[in-house]
Parts: sequence; C-alpha cells; structure tokens
Amino acid sequence: MIRTHNAGVLRKEHAGQQVTLAGWVARRRDHGGVVFIDLRDASGSAQVVFREEDHAHDLRAEYCVRVSGEVRVRPEGNANPELPTGEVEVVATEVEVLSEAAPLPFPIEGSTGVSEEARLKYRYLDIRRQQVAHAMRTRSRATFLANQVMDELGFVYVETPTLTRSTPEGARDFLVPVRLQPGNWYALPQSPQLFKQLLQVAGLERYYQLAKCYRDEDLRADRQPEFTQIDIEMSFVDQEDVIAVGEALIGRVWKEILGYEVPTPLPRMTYADAMARFGSDKPDLRFGQELVEMTDYFAQTSFRVFQADYVGAVVMPGGASQSRKELDAWQDWAKSRGARGLAYVLVQEDGTLGGPVAKNLSEAEQSGLAAKVGAASGDAIFFAAGARGASRDLLGAARLEIGRRCGLIDESRWSFLWVVDAPMFEEDGEGGWTAVHHPFTGPKPEWADNFQDHPGQALAYAYDMVCNGMEIGGGSIRIHRAEMQQRVFDVLGISKEEAESKFGFLLDAFQYGPPPHGGIAYGWDRICMLLAGGDSIRDVIAFPKTASGFDPLTGAPTSITVEQRKEAGVDAKPKE
Amino acid sequence: MIRTHNAGVLRKEHAGQQVTLAGWVARRRDHGGVVFIDLRDASGSAQVVFREEDHAHDLRAEYCVRVSGEVRVRPEGNANPELPTGEVEVVATEVEVLSEAAPLPFPIEGSTGVSEEARLKYRYLDIRRQQVAHAMRTRSRATFLANQVMDELGFVYVETPTLTRSTPEGARDFLVPVRLQPGNWYALPQSPQLFKQLLQVAGLERYYQLAKCYRDEDLRADRQPEFTQIDIEMSFVDQEDVIAVGEALIGRVWKEILGYEVPTPLPRMTYADAMARFGSDKPDLRFGQELVEMTDYFAQTSFRVFQADYVGAVVMPGGASQSRKELDAWQDWAKSRGARGLAYVLVQEDGTLGGPVAKNLSEAEQSGLAAKVGAASGDAIFFAAGARGASRDLLGAARLEIGRRCGLIDESRWSFLWVVDAPMFEEDGEGGWTAVHHPFTGPKPEWADNFQDHPGQALAYAYDMVCNGMEIGGGSIRIHRAEMQQRVFDVLGISKEEAESKFGFLLDAFQYGPPPHGGIAYGWDRICMLLAGGDSIRDVIAFPKTASGFDPLTGAPTSITVEQRKEAGVDAKPKE
Repeated sequence: MIRTHNAGVLRKEHAGQQVTLAGWVARRRDHGGVVFIDLRDASGSAQVVFREEDHAHDLRAEYCVRVSGEVRVRPEGNANPELPTGEVEVVATEVEVLSEAAPLPFPIEGSTGVSEEARLKYRYLDIRRQQVAHAMRTRSRATFLANQVMDELGFVYVETPTLTRSTPEGARDFLVPVRLQPGNWYALPQSPQLFKQLLQVAGLERYYQLAKCYRDEDLRADRQPEFTQIDIEMSFVDQEDVIAVGEALIGRVWKEILGYEVPTPLPRMTYADAMARFGSDKPDLRFGQELVEMTDYFAQTSFRVFQADYVGAVVMPGGASQSRKELDAWQDWAKSRGARGLAYVLVQEDGTLGGPVAKNLSEAEQSGLAAKVGAASGDAIFFAAGARGASRDLLGAARLEIGRRCGLIDESRWSFLWVVDAPMFEEDGEGGWTAVHHPFTGPKPEWADNFQDHPGQALAYAYDMVCNGMEIGGGSIRIHRAEMQQRVFDVLGISKEEAESKFGFLLDAFQYGPPPHGGIAYGWDRICMLLAGGDSIRDVIAFPKTASGFDPLTGAPTSITVEQRKEAGVDAKPKE
Repeated sequence: MIRTHNAGVLRKEHAGQQVTLAGWVARRRDHGGVVFIDLRDASGSAQVVFREEDHAHDLRAEYCVRVSGEVRVRPEGNANPELPTGEVEVVATEVEVLSEAAPLPFPIEGSTGVSEEARLKYRYLDIRRQQVAHAMRTRSRATFLANQVMDELGFVYVETPTLTRSTPEGARDFLVPVRLQPGNWYALPQSPQLFKQLLQVAGLERYYQLAKCYRDEDLRADRQPEFTQIDIEMSFVDQEDVIAVGEALIGRVWKEILGYEVPTPLPRMTYADAMARFGSDKPDLRFGQELVEMTDYFAQTSFRVFQADYVGAVVMPGGASQSRKELDAWQDWAKSRGARGLAYVLVQEDGTLGGPVAKNLSEAEQSGLAAKVGAASGDAIFFAAGARGASRDLLGAARLEIGRRCGLIDESRWSFLWVVDAPMFEEDGEGGWTAVHHPFTGPKPEWADNFQDHPGQALAYAYDMVCNGMEIGGGSIRIHRAEMQQRVFDVLGISKEEAESKFGFLLDAFQYGPPPHGGIAYGWDRICMLLAGGDSIRDVIAFPKTASGFDPLTGAPTSITVEQRKEAGVDAKPKE
C-alpha cells in the first residue's frame, strides 16, 4: 500500500506517529497561512494541517493526494466530536498530488438536489458521496451474510446458465444472436426457475444462487432490465421448510445490518384475508385503516351506486375537514387508476353526515354507518362499489394513500408477514384460466385431486414474503408428478405440443424420479434498498439504467456496425 | 421435511430408532424373499431391507421413494466397511413411491464410458452420479471460501451491469437488441474491467465480484461462451498488495478443500525467464526438461538449419529408443503446430549420436552436445531453430508433450508461481504495436517515462498466477494518469476519436482524481476444475454448452418467431 494508515482510523493514541495517508481532498479551509484539509478515503476522513500555504495551494476539491506527516492531538477547543477522528489532525510535511480533478459537475460533500441524470452520468463521483457509498457497502454486507446463512444451512451454490432458451414466464425475453449458429438465438433468463427445478431432479437437494435475471418489460417506475434475486430450491420439503429458511435468511440480515430482531415465526395471512382486509396481496401492516365490507349493510339500499356485488369502505382520519379541492383531487386520483370515482361521506363534528352521497342513504343507513366502519367525528369514509376485485384494489390503494397523506405510517417500523394460500388460477378474461404464479406451482394438499374441477377456488401451495407493503420474496411447492402437471396444463389450455416446445426438457426430466420440491426467490435489489434506507432500487445498484434502459454513463445501448451485424448472424436464416 | 434423517448419517448409535428416509433407489439386490436396496440421497446412502418382497417389488432404479422403518445393526459379517453407513441397515415397514423413473439412458451407479453428449442432454441424471455431484459441491464450497476471504480482507462485493456497452477487449461481444430503443443494442461484458476501474475512481477502494463474463470466440476445446471470474480491484496499491490478496485467496481455498498448504509467498519468474526456460508464459514446473539455448553453441555451424537467430533444444529421456514411426509422428505433431518439423539427435547407448541431423554436425559440435543439453545415453534431443518466439513456442509445446508421454508429470503435485514483467506491447505484424494485456495496463515504474521510446522492450506492471501449467489469474497495475494513458494510445495508434468512442466514459472519469489502482481476475471455472480434479471446465459447470455453443439439454439456441423479431426491434433503424 502506498499509505501507512487509513484516514478514518486515526485516534488520540496515534499522536506522535508519522503516518502517510492517501485519499481525496474533501473540504478545504484557509486560515491566514494555515490550510486545513479534510482528507477522505474509504474508511472515513481526517483533518490535515498545512502550516505553509505553498504545500497546499494547489489542492482543490477531489484531488487525489498522498500526505505524510505527524499525528497530533488537536489544540484545546478545536476537537470535532462529530468526527471519529475529530480529536486529532495530521501536520503535513509532504504532499504528493496523485491526480488532479477537473471542476466537478456537482459537489461531493454535503450536496443535495443533484438531478438523477447527473448522478448516473457521473456515477463514479456520486458513489464518492457518503450515503451512496454506504448503500453499496450495505448491499455487499447483506450479500455476504446471505451467503453465510445459506452455507450454514447446507445449501449448494450453483451458477445456472444465462445464455439459454426462451422460457415462458410472463415477460418478454432479451435475445442474443448466436454467431456460431447463425439464425439461432439465446435468451437471457427471466429467472433460473427451470434450472433450479432440474437441479432438484439432479439430487442436489438444496440449491441457492445470487442470480442475475432479465425481463424486457415496459417502462415502470422502479424496474431495471437486469435485476438480482437470491434464488433457492429444496427437495423433500413442504411449505414450512422453505418458510423457515426464508426467515433465517431475512432474520440474519436484518439483525446484523440494522440490529433489528425480526420476530419469527412471522405472522401469516391468507391471500383471501389480505385482499378482504387490505385490498392488497402485499399488505402494509404498519398502520390500520382496514377495509370494511359493506355489501350486507347496503343489501337493501335504494342508492343505485351501492346496489353492487361488493361495497366496501375505508376511513380517512380527519378527512371531513378536507377542502372541496382536496376532495375533488381524490376523484381525479381514482379516475387515474381507472375507477369512475371515489364515493365519500364526511362525518361532521356533530355526528351528522355530509358529502354528496349521504343524502342518498336512508336514515337507518346513515345512523349506523360511522359505527359500522369505525369512523369518528371529523373522519371521511371512502367507498368503492362494483366488482369485488377492482373495488378492493381501489380501496387498498386509497388506504395506502390515506396512510401517506395522514402520516399514519411509522417509518421506523418493520412489518414482515407471509401471505399464503393464493389462488392457483385466475380468469384470463377470455373464458379460460391463467396461472397466478407459474404452471409448475403445486396445489395445496387438500386441492391435489380436484383443483381442475374448481379452478376458481383452488389454492396454490405458494407463499410470498411481504415487508412494509412490498413483496420481497415469493415461491411455492412445485408439482413433481407428471399426471398432476398434465391436469394443470389442461386447465390452462396448454397443449401437449406447446408444453413440449416451451419446457419439454423439464417434462423429460420429470420422467426420472423427480423428488417433491419447492423454493423461493428473494428480490435482492429491493431487500438491499430496504436495508440501506433507499427510495429506489437504483440506490443500491452500482450502475443502474433509466426506466427506458439507457445508461447515462456509458451511453449504452448503441447502434452496431454493419460488420458486427453481419458477423453476429442477425439476419441469417437458421439451418433446418 | 418429509423425512426424519438423511440416509448418509445413519450409524450404530441410531440402532433401534424409527426413521423415515427419502431418496433414490440406487442398487437393488433380491435374495429369496428379502430385498436389499441402497437408498441414495444428497448425504450418501444407506441399505434398506424389505423382508417381504411385495413392499419392494415395484422399486426400480432411480425411483424416488420415502421409506420408514427401524435402524438395526447389520447381522454379523454383513457390515460394509467401505460405506460410512455400512454397519447398519433400515428394516422397512412402509414405503411410498414419490415418483417413478423411466428406463434410464445410462446407469447412475458405477458407470463409465457414457458419451459426453448423453451426459449433457441428461445432465440432471449425470449430476446424480457421485463424482459429478462432488464437483458441484466443491465449486460451491470454493465460492463460499472465496467470499469469506474477500470479506475478511475488507473487499466490497459490487454487481456490475451485464447489459452494457461494447468494450474493446480483443474478443467479439455478444449483442442484445433493445426493444425500448429500437435499433440500439446492448453488449454482454467480456469482463467488468471498465466498471471495476470506475469503482476505484468512485472511491470504494476494494472491489470484488463473482462475475459472469461473455466472449463470442471461435470454437476452442475448453471454452464456454459464458464463464465466471473472481474479479478484484484495489486502490492505493502496488503489485505486492494485489499478489498478497491473490495468495490469501488461493491459499485458503486449497487449504480448506484439499488440505494442501500452498507455500507462500509463491515463487516468481519473469516472463523473459519463463519463455527462455520453458517456452511458455505459463510454465508447468512439476517437471524439468528445461529448454537449452544453443544459439551460441552453433554460432559457427556449417549446418544450414542451425544457422538461425535462435537455436534451442529440449531433452526427451529415453527418447533414443523410439521407433521410426514414433519419430515420424513427432514430425507430424510439429507440422500440425505450423512448424516445418522437429529436428532431433538420438544419444545412443554407446554415447554416439544418431538420427538424420547428427551427420551434419561437426565433430566438435557432436562431442559436446549431450553434456551441453544435459542428455544421457538413450535420450533424444529435439531442436528448434529460427525466429526466437516461434522456436521457443515449439520447444515449449514439445516439452509438455515429452512430460506427458514420458510420465514425468507428478499429478499429485501443485506448482504455483507468478509470472511477472511481461512486455507491454507486441508487434502487430503490420509495423505497429498491440497491447499484450489491455491498453489500461501500466508500465513498470522504471519504464514510466520512456516506454514509448522502446515499445519492444518496455515491461508491463502485470502479473499472472500460474498453476500446473495453466494461467489461473492475471492482472496489472493500471494507468491512472491521463498523460500516460495518452502515450499508450499513441504507441497503439489509437486516435482520440477511437479512444473517445470506445472508452470515453472511463477517460472522462479519469479527469476527476482517479487513485492509483490495480487488480486481478481469477478464472473461476478453471480453478474449480483443478480443485475438483476434473479434466475440463465442463466438469464444474452445472449446465455447460458444447464447443459450438449448443446446449444439448434445452436445445438452446433456437430460432425466434417473426413476432419476437419484430418486437425486439432487431431490424429497426436507430434514431439519430
């Protein structure tokens, strides 16, 4: 090393020692002939004093320098208690500029309000900022802890291929032309799903991987075309075993990084309950405001809007005092989500009901309403009526919006839970069924024999881990019997030919004594974002792309040359 | 878990316990009403006894079963000392077939001689074989140990992008069309080289990653289009620091997995020495047979063939007794490598010299020859004469061939070394220079100011780790000064425009106080192959491809549909 000490480790006990530091000029203060510089490196920073200006007169922000000198205790009254090295300083006797820095596009120290585009274009400067570097280090620590837990639990780390065959997982594949087989293409994997199941057939029994996955999806706020999951699969297990591994993993990471003891076993909620109570399959339990079903309450209503398959309500505390403009904004909010509006009743301070809906309700309906939904004087009650699914979705979203607007969410809390017993199938809108998870997801044991007879009711042996209203992991016990797999394909209307062409190799493998197995995958970017306290997964990705897949730093993607195109065989016809 | 015990853990002390096992039917022996089955799972195997045939009559090879019964000590004389569980057996009272197995394409137990194509097509069966599963587990263990060492040494694990911009690293890039930016393409990275250097500019100081890399190369015996490296980069270091990290990494892995104490610090050899003594930049030191330079010895020779810039020799012990056919085969071998032949002299038992070359040599040349090259009676001496580089290459290859044919290589030995001081540049055959490593490789400190004046002599600050004649890691101290980088580009004839278009973003970053830095990358597939005792990196890759990039299991790559092609924007013109 070209230095003797890391800057951040210097303490009183180093006083009198000759040290050589190397790092970046973070802050500079000139005091009549004496220059103070904060020298920053990966370990922290230390104050360096130049007693003669000429040593330091060249040193500008973010110059990379090497400084030698003696450590001394700072003069009485000059200590900085906010800095770990704040009791000492280095009196420079030698300084070498290792490299200069051009004027910066944005300041490194203490800066806020830099545009994301600038941050990504100059990501190598952005990462010099303490918070961003901390996020990178947190992710690294979390990854190591995950490896450690999985190793302790006897899992085998297996790298699965990333140049592979197009698999049917709901999103589009990224494609790669194959020069050596002109006209043929690899696909980048949406997940190692099929390979991890093959590894169970292969008898490895406990597989995991930090797996890069690729989905060519349309623009969405916080998506990246490539993302990382901790991918896990186990043989001879049932749901309890996979859940126990997940809790061990999450528990260790939260404990070691945040000092937070995740209360295991985590609570579980059925999918049906989550939808009924929170209008979401990933409920945020950090606040209340549960949905109240009002279908029975309004069963005899003469109010046409509430003569619906489903009527539900959610309460906004203090919402009765909202201005007309605020109440109108809710209507716009609902319309932007595809709803026709958001009916509301305002519970006035005197207990009477206001708002345009109230007058359509009978006296009996009015008098019991506040008590039924748990509203107090001064609250607003929002309603959704219509199809059960869409109405609950709307109320669930309204609940989250209420939580945010009213400051009901305790940001210091962690709310983990498992959502279990999701449906196997959902209607595809064309009279058929699609798989809610993927076609290899098994039914719950009690549905093993007859899921095909009641596709709308059958429950999957699936489980999602939810944290603070985000799905951070999801998995299932898989189907390992060919006969059962065939029944699922039949429900989904997947023909033999289609199954063969899409995942024939997995079905082939299942002819040779496949074990019962199941697994889970954790969204590692999202988990690291939570651990690092970020707002976006871009906060924990070293070189993220924008929503359109553009990398402001490298300028990728780019056009290719005619020669590259020809060489890669992009336009070749495949041989028969 | 649907079992109570792993089969491989059962011992005498379990006798009398009721257990439930789950695994595969490995071997079956029927003995008049009693059936013995070896039940295999990931932990090993155990013998199960069925006292009534009807329980077992369905159980064929590789059925996946669950068996319950009582553990008992095997009857006197029936213990199998070769099996860890050989003292006990499980007397089955219940058996459940979890899944059946079709007739196998090849036997799992004790099989050899299965074609590689069959092994790869049915890789999920191949991995059930003990040796293959062991290779997978060894790789997993090695990966965990690597993570552990790097964590202990304070390295930050950073995932770098794999959908990125084409970078100039000597091989072709795999390309990916970008649907959201039609007409533009990502490239899959040949290595994270530029990103890891950016992370040094970013101040992370110690980066590592288990990195997937992609090179679209032509068919070569043991190459895969995707491969894995342990990628490392450090700031404020010199060569000694990077070497120390590498020795810690390799030392830990060999120690923990093979119980072998790597003797550190490893020996070092200059590139020049390696080429002179072994005709290779990755010498296999497990045997001698060093090259002997004979240029001076034959300086006055009248033998035209040896009137050359370089004459060298290598000795084949006992080679004088080779048949005419064997000696001719050496000529063919040399010609297949592009040489005109391989001159040889046979040292007869009586000390006289035989073979067609001998009679062209003067008496003085003949009489001193054996002593000069260190040959004994009965040995053959092979010669190469001509251009120094090509001749040494040929002799180096002959030396390895001699080592193999004569059984000189002690396969139980490990020979690690560093090869250092490689040249910075080599002639490109068109009057110019190319970089031996890559254009960011720095010169050795003594060449810092004047490498541009002597490109043919200048030495790079580079180091390769070699094990048993294979390069397993390579790296360098990088250039971090723009002025020096410009001089390298000038030598390489890279114009400002070309540099800007290929790696402008790295040069931009280097304007902002880049630290001195360097790193190394270890070929993880090759290292795991050595650890697992394999012959090919395919032995330690779960789902490898053939040399043409074909995956016999999934059938990748495949043709794509017209719709996929259109959607991916393959034929779109990029917007200006």
